[in-house]
Amino acid sequence: MKTKSTVLLIPIMIAESGESHLPMIFTESIRSCSIFFAENIKTARRAFRKMDRSFPIDDKEWIEIGKSEEASAALFRSKLAEDATIGIVSESGCPGIADPGQILVGIAQALGIKVVPIAGPNSILLALMASGLNGQLFSFHGYLPIDRTKRQQAIQSLEHVSRTAGTSNIFIETPYRNAVMLEALLAVLHIETRLCIAVDITGEQEWIRTKSVGDWKKNIPELPKSPAIFIIGR
Amino acid sequence: MKTKSTVLLIPIMIAESGESHLPMIFTESIRSCSIFFAENIKTARRAFRKMDRSFPIDDKEWIEIGKSEEASAALFRSKLAEDATIGIVSESGCPGIADPGQILVGIAQALGIKVVPIAGPNSILLALMASGLNGQLFSFHGYLPIDRTKRQQAIQSLEHVSRTAGTSNIFIETPYRNAVMLEALLAVLHIETRLCIAVDITGEQEWIRTKSVGDWKKNIPELPKSPAIFIIGR
Repeated sequence: MKTKSTVLLIPIMIAESGESHLPMIFTESIRSCSIFFAENIKTARRAFRKMDRSFPIDDKEWIEIGKSEEASAALFRSKLAEDATIGIVSESGCPGIADPGQILVGIAQALGIKVVPIAGPNSILLALMASGLNGQLFSFHGYLPIDRTKRQQAIQSLEHVSRTAGTSNIFIETPYRNAVMLEALLAVLHIETRLCIAVDITGEQEWIRTKSVGDWKKNIPELPKSPAIFIIGR
Repeated sequence: MKTKSTVLLIPIMIAESGESHLPMIFTESIRSCSIFFAENIKTARRAFRKMDRSFPIDDKEWIEIGKSEEASAALFRSKLAEDATIGIVSESGCPGIADPGQILVGIAQALGIKVVPIAGPNSILLALMASGLNGQLFSFHGYLPIDRTKRQQAIQSLEHVSRTAGTSNIFIETPYRNAVMLEALLAVLHIETRLCIAVDITGEQEWIRTKSVGDWKKNIPELPKSPAIFIIGR
């Protein structure tokens, strides 16, 4: 496609009070876009106004990706033909990482259009940095199975990879299942396996702790019902 | 250990002109530390002064981690006992991710000391964001083997995982071997496999392109001798 369009990947805060972790280039980046494809328009608009009081929200075109990124694909293609700077914004963190965005970015890449990622907070990376676990070799697995037996098998399989290859195995859980997940982890894992739990990263209640499973068992924390990252390490 | 120490994980720019990707909290963070454990003191000092002209470099204590992080462990422990705010800084990007830092962070975690990660540019994450490849399931593998046969096997094994599980497989190469790596990838991978190559991320020559191996073969790029990220996807 012959177009001068550029696609900007815009990060957003991952905690209510975490805006200071956004990059210095943030305001300049959002101002340079004329169109936004946002996972959630309301969240994005509120965040942009929080960061930039005079951000001209109503001069921009807003398209909601929602839960069906595929459905925005045709519209995204047509906008790419307009020589526009298009921003992609997810509901929290970096678009395309454990969040929508990659179908649209894949379209831009297939058409040879310039894609520019803007650095910002990402809970997977921040948890791994602060975990003390191996940052030379790691895998992100998304959600583990909900079924009890399958989840148990998944945990055992991740622990096996951690023990043999040294890989840090990262996964997430929906907030209301945090306690069930922790229970499953402490029941299945070896006592000497190291487990990191990270909650409210960049927020006021940030809590990132790595202990051996044996140590966790001595004092089982009550996890808040907020997004958590778990990392199984060696 | 009973101490009020805090460990701050400080990111640093990953390209000469990439300072605008550092977080708004950057200056406040570095000013709050009294001691720095830096992979390379010279690089860290220069970066801090670039970001903050009046940063009081000589009021801070500087300890070089260098290539032997283990050797700084005892000193790190003794500093933790001093109720200090200690910054860990790598030579580029985020400490502990494909860079030194995790041995020291692991010590802090084992002692129950607060570890606070500061968001910032990371070439692995930024390349993955901009690749259009799967960001729900990904692995980072560091360097692939140098030996020709072993490297070939590693590439085939990563491609197999990408094709069967959909995982994005990320690895790095030392700049002077970029061309040899690309040659190996194009020789081994199936033509329909998608390959992302990312160079000079956040820099003026930033170039992040995803194409099928078939398309790459039609027009093989001459990669600059600068750090590159490669991602094999489906």
